[in-house]
Amino acid sequence: MSEAAQTLDGWYSLHDLRAMNWPAWKALSSDERQTAIYEFQQFINKLNKTQSEKQGSHALYTIVGQKADFILWMLRPTMEELNELENEFNKLTIAEYTIPTYSYVSVVELSNYVGGGNSDEDPYQNPYVKSRLYPELPKSKYICFYPMDKRREGNDNWYMLSMEERREMMRSHGMIGRKYAGKVKQIITGSVGFDDYEWGVTLFSDDVLQFKKLVYEMRFDEVSARYGEFGSFFVGNLLEEEKIAKFLHV
Amino acid sequence: MSEAAQTLDGWYSLHDLRAMNWPAWKALSSDERQTAIYEFQQFINKLNKTQSEKQGSHALYTIVGQKADFILWMLRPTMEELNELENEFNKLTIAEYTIPTYSYVSVVELSNYVGGGNSDEDPYQNPYVKSRLYPELPKSKYICFYPMDKRREGNDNWYMLSMEERREMMRSHGMIGRKYAGKVKQIITGSVGFDDYEWGVTLFSDDVLQFKKLVYEMRFDEVSARYGEFGSFFVGNLLEEEKIAKFLHV
Amino acid sequence: MSEAAQTLDGWYSLHDLRAMNWPAWKALSSDERQTAIYEFQQFINKLNKTQSEKQGSHALYTIVGQKADFILWMLRPTMEELNELENEFNKLTIAEYTIPTYSYVSVVELSNYVGGGNSDEDPYQNPYVKSRLYPELPKSKYICFYPMDKRREGNDNWYMLSMEERREMMRSHGMIGRKYAGKVKQIITGSVGFDDYEWGVTLFSDDVLQFKKLVYEMRFDEVSARYGEFGSFFVGNLLEEEKIAKFLHV
Amino acid sequence: MSEAAQTLDGWYSLHDLRAMNWPAWKALSSDERQTAIYEFQQFINKLNKTQSEKQGSHALYTIVGQKADFILWMLRPTMEELNELENEFNKLTIAEYTIPTYSYVSVVELSNYVGGGNSDEDPYQNPYVKSRLYPELPKSKYICFYPMDKRREGNDNWYMLSMEERREMMRSHGMIGRKYAGKVKQIITGSVGFDDYEWGVTLFSDDVLQFKKLVYEMRFDEVSARYGEFGSFFVGNLLEEEKIAKFLHV
Amino acid sequence: MSEAAQTLDGWYSLHDLRAMNWPAWKALSSDERQTAIYEFQQFINKLNKTQSEKQGSHALYTIVGQKADFILWMLRPTMEELNELENEFNKLTIAEYTIPTYSYVSVVELSNYVGGGNSDEDPYQNPYVKSRLYPELPKSKYICFYPMDKRREGNDNWYMLSMEERREMMRSHGMIGRKYAGKVKQIITGSVGFDDYEWGVTLFSDDVLQFKKLVYEMRFDEVSARYGEFGSFFVGNLLEEEKIAKFLHV
Repeated sequence: MSEAAQTLDGWYSLHDLRAMNWPAWKALSSDERQTAIYEFQQFINKLNKTQSEKQGSHALYTIVGQKADFILWMLRPTMEELNELENEFNKLTIAEYTIPTYSYVSVVELSNYVGGGNSDEDPYQNPYVKSRLYPELPKSKYICFYPMDKRREGNDNWYMLSMEERREMMRSHGMIGRKYAGKVKQIITGSVGFDDYEWGVTLFSDDVLQFKKLVYEMRFDEVSARYGEFGSFFVGNLLEEEKIAKFLHV
Repeated sequence: MSEAAQTLDGWYSLHDLRAMNWPAWKALSSDERQTAIYEFQQFINKLNKTQSEKQGSHALYTIVGQKADFILWMLRPTMEELNELENEFNKLTIAEYTIPTYSYVSVVELSNYVGGGNSDEDPYQNPYVKSRLYPELPKSKYICFYPMDKRREGNDNWYMLSMEERREMMRSHGMIGRKYAGKVKQIITGSVGFDDYEWGVTLFSDDVLQFKKLVYEMRFDEVSARYGEFGSFFVGNLLEEEKIAKFLHV
Repeated sequence: MSEAAQTLDGWYSLHDLRAMNWPAWKALSSDERQTAIYEFQQFINKLNKTQSEKQGSHALYTIVGQKADFILWMLRPTMEELNELENEFNKLTIAEYTIPTYSYVSVVELSNYVGGGNSDEDPYQNPYVKSRLYPELPKSKYICFYPMDKRREGNDNWYMLSMEERREMMRSHGMIGRKYAGKVKQIITGSVGFDDYEWGVTLFSDDVLQFKKLVYEMRFDEVSARYGEFGSFFVGNLLEEEKIAKFLHV
Repeated sequence: MSEAAQTLDGWYSLHDLRAMNWPAWKALSSDERQTAIYEFQQFINKLNKTQSEKQGSHALYTIVGQKADFILWMLRPTMEELNELENEFNKLTIAEYTIPTYSYVSVVELSNYVGGGNSDEDPYQNPYVKSRLYPELPKSKYICFYPMDKRREGNDNWYMLSMEERREMMRSHGMIGRKYAGKVKQIITGSVGFDDYEWGVTLFSDDVLQFKKLVYEMRFDEVSARYGEFGSFFVGNLLEEEKIAKFLHV
Repeated sequence: MSEAAQTLDGWYSLHDLRAMNWPAWKALSSDERQTAIYEFQQFINKLNKTQSEKQGSHALYTIVGQKADFILWMLRPTMEELNELENEFNKLTIAEYTIPTYSYVSVVELSNYVGGGNSDEDPYQNPYVKSRLYPELPKSKYICFYPMDKRREGNDNWYMLSMEERREMMRSHGMIGRKYAGKVKQIITGSVGFDDYEWGVTLFSDDVLQFKKLVYEMRFDEVSARYGEFGSFFVGNLLEEEKIAKFLHV
């Protein structure tokens, strides 16, 4: 048996992707829509309050193409809080006019492949680690989300490699990522045992083209070339709170 | 032909996963919803009675993400009782406001890979075996459910291995499981001939992160790394009976 | 080119699987439901008559889990009769309250792998052969149905094997089946050119656990281990005619 | 690079498969249904006229099983005419009571694998070739339709074979087909660049069992055994115009 | 790690494919339909204006078969403009009578496989490059669209090849394309990080058969034969603005 990678785990995560049911939404009266929008904004205000109290974080983006019209990404300290928040959103009036198209359950994760740190130290007390496990999500202009697996197929079986082989490959993989430092912020969430892929990757940037450059460059790296299996890709634009009404205006 | 593993088989099992049709549920009057909730609670009371009489068991959890809003897992001595219970649930008012999203038919199973026991003994009379074949499901805070197959692909064909090879690998696999004793309770249900995968795995824990740690650690073990094929993963929170009304409150 | 197996072909077959649309069914008045049930029973009576005249056969079982609520399996001498029967069922009131979930078109088949017989004889006149090609379906307590293919992948390509290799493997496969004689009745229907898999397998038993034991034991046999590709498995309980009203009672 | 096969291309083709929405159809008044049936028959009359003028052809068959209730196969000289015909059908009243379940866009094709002919001749002027590129579809009792690909996987990559290897295999494949001459009529339509598979295969026969015998025998031939990838199979019965009203009678 | 190909990236791209909900559309009054058509035409006029100002481009084609009734392909300088345009379309009355069937998010792309050019020059200032990155879409009679990947499977792993191997193969691939110069116009859009495949390929021609000839000939080229993975193919006819009313007339 190969040595398993060790992880540090932070906030629980739900990526909730929805399409708008525009015909039903348009069938409402203008007043009903205003009330629903106001209620949605109050819900966002509540998320903002939790975020300012550092008890969680969230991000709201529109999504391009038919896979979804928007994504609400929510982070919370416990699976219960996450579930309650999901249910609270589901009970909003606006939710009645959305169609669930995809969701992803995971937990913010750091792995020990790119190890280091003082081994006497409790990593959960390290300020840098804490900032990554319990992040305040940025207000970048663009988001990119996709789930992924490490391949286990014939001669391309990641989980049969030794820790050394995996660490070496992950190091070279990380070097590509570092080239995009300052341009792309990446948050990895682990989902083994929680959802159908093993990880969720969420990228933020103020230059949407950097998503393509980063993911394409990485695809030539052995970690992705031989061992990466990818789910659906979702890309979108920041939905600032003051633009919610415009987005929903019909 | 390789020697087939022998199994002991207990209660029949139905994992029934449902999404709430929130818009339709909200369209009911408050009185109609109360009546439906009361009827659902009476149904649960009946399940409790059966459980206390040791004629079956059940578990009710909410599920995080869009794959389902809740799971009702039911165990019964015969396939007929299971089917009748399913139909009874389907005829409840609450069921009209749910959308079936996934189900799994299987039977609680123990295999002889990790053999032992006095071979003169009838294992079905062994109290430990009985407690595992006819379990009272725990009220742990979290549940994790996924179906799985053993792979039959090219050089990675579990069913072409000898009994010795399989037993050796299952032993090392079981050792990982034992490290989680006291943290995670695992119930295996067999579904060959009953449903699309070969087994259902249901995990219970009071620490949801242990699901991830356990499944991830096992993935580096050859049994999973080379031979495991996994279906969808569902994770959720205990829905105590006294919280049903709150969960359904809109 | 490998020598193709020869087959004897009997009645044409339609496995028709349906979920109940319970909410719509419940929305009918009690009288409307009674009328629909009566019409359905008359339809079954007609099937019984055809069966007693040995012009076809049928089986009606409830199905456990969300894949279907019941299966109606129909055998008829021609594809036209089968299609007409399907359309007749589709036009019943009860059918309006069902949701088609799966169907399978095939023909009862015997292959020459397990050959024998007097080669001067017309096998279609052999009473034993006739009883298998034009069977009266049993009223066993349980049914199991699944479609399957023989694999054609890399080194595991059934159709590139010689007739001798295939016959030898099928013989050992058949020996497992014979161990279940008296416990499980198996009917093979061929669907090459008719539906998406190559065969349908329907099992009947009075002990539902025998389905699992049989299919699992066969999975370790090379025919299944290396060459079997399986579709969905459906398992269910006999729906006696006198229980139809109870099954549909809401 | 391997030499590409050359093709002769005839009429453009749309296989349009529909399920009936029986509940909605039954909800119409008898008069409304009669009007819709009459309009549908007028549409068929128009197709007949085009066919008699040799400006296209069509076939109408019921389909057995839930995949569809009928198929309308249409051939036309241009993609525009085909599209217009499709839209015309979509705008009929009857179409409102159908559910699209599958369609296939292709063009009648002859390949040069089984070459020959006088190379000085323009094949499009050859009467035999013309009769095959612009066929009048037969009124056989049964139809069978399925799309297919040639495999490109590991060592089984059709497109990496030399022209000679492919031609040799296609010749032996064609010899099987010739054994069914007079029993099965086969029309190949090419769909590379037009639809998701590379070819559509449509078979006609007055003996439905010949579809199974032909496809099964071919499966043991290397072209299919190693290189064939098949989509869904649809099988059905001729729907004579005078039986349309009966088929739609509820 | 292999050297990644470099790309030049132009306008952002959304292929938006829709089926018509004909029954709902027919249920409108003639006046309501006229109003909706007029609104749609105004929307197209606006797109035309943007195109004439060289701030984007678009194409509108009907699609043959059930996969869609029409495609609206839109190109814009930023992901925000693209998203806004999508939302604007979604809010049109006509959109209420469409069913989203597929979409694709990408960006017009030129790769450096077929390099060249003066390396001192900024390629984004090169008029030829600009005409290809910011193209005015042609009004050809036919369109063909499909997404594709380069394979990463066992010994057929494009991303593990050296830059030289890939460049050599792409050169020979490009030579096939050049044979179709003047007959087929091809626009490649890159979608790594944006959508589920790696590229979208859109072809335009005044002879629909050239799509089939081109794609088929390329399939025998090693780049496609060993390394091409294809999604769905969509083919259709130009929907001139003056024909919109006819297309929507019921």
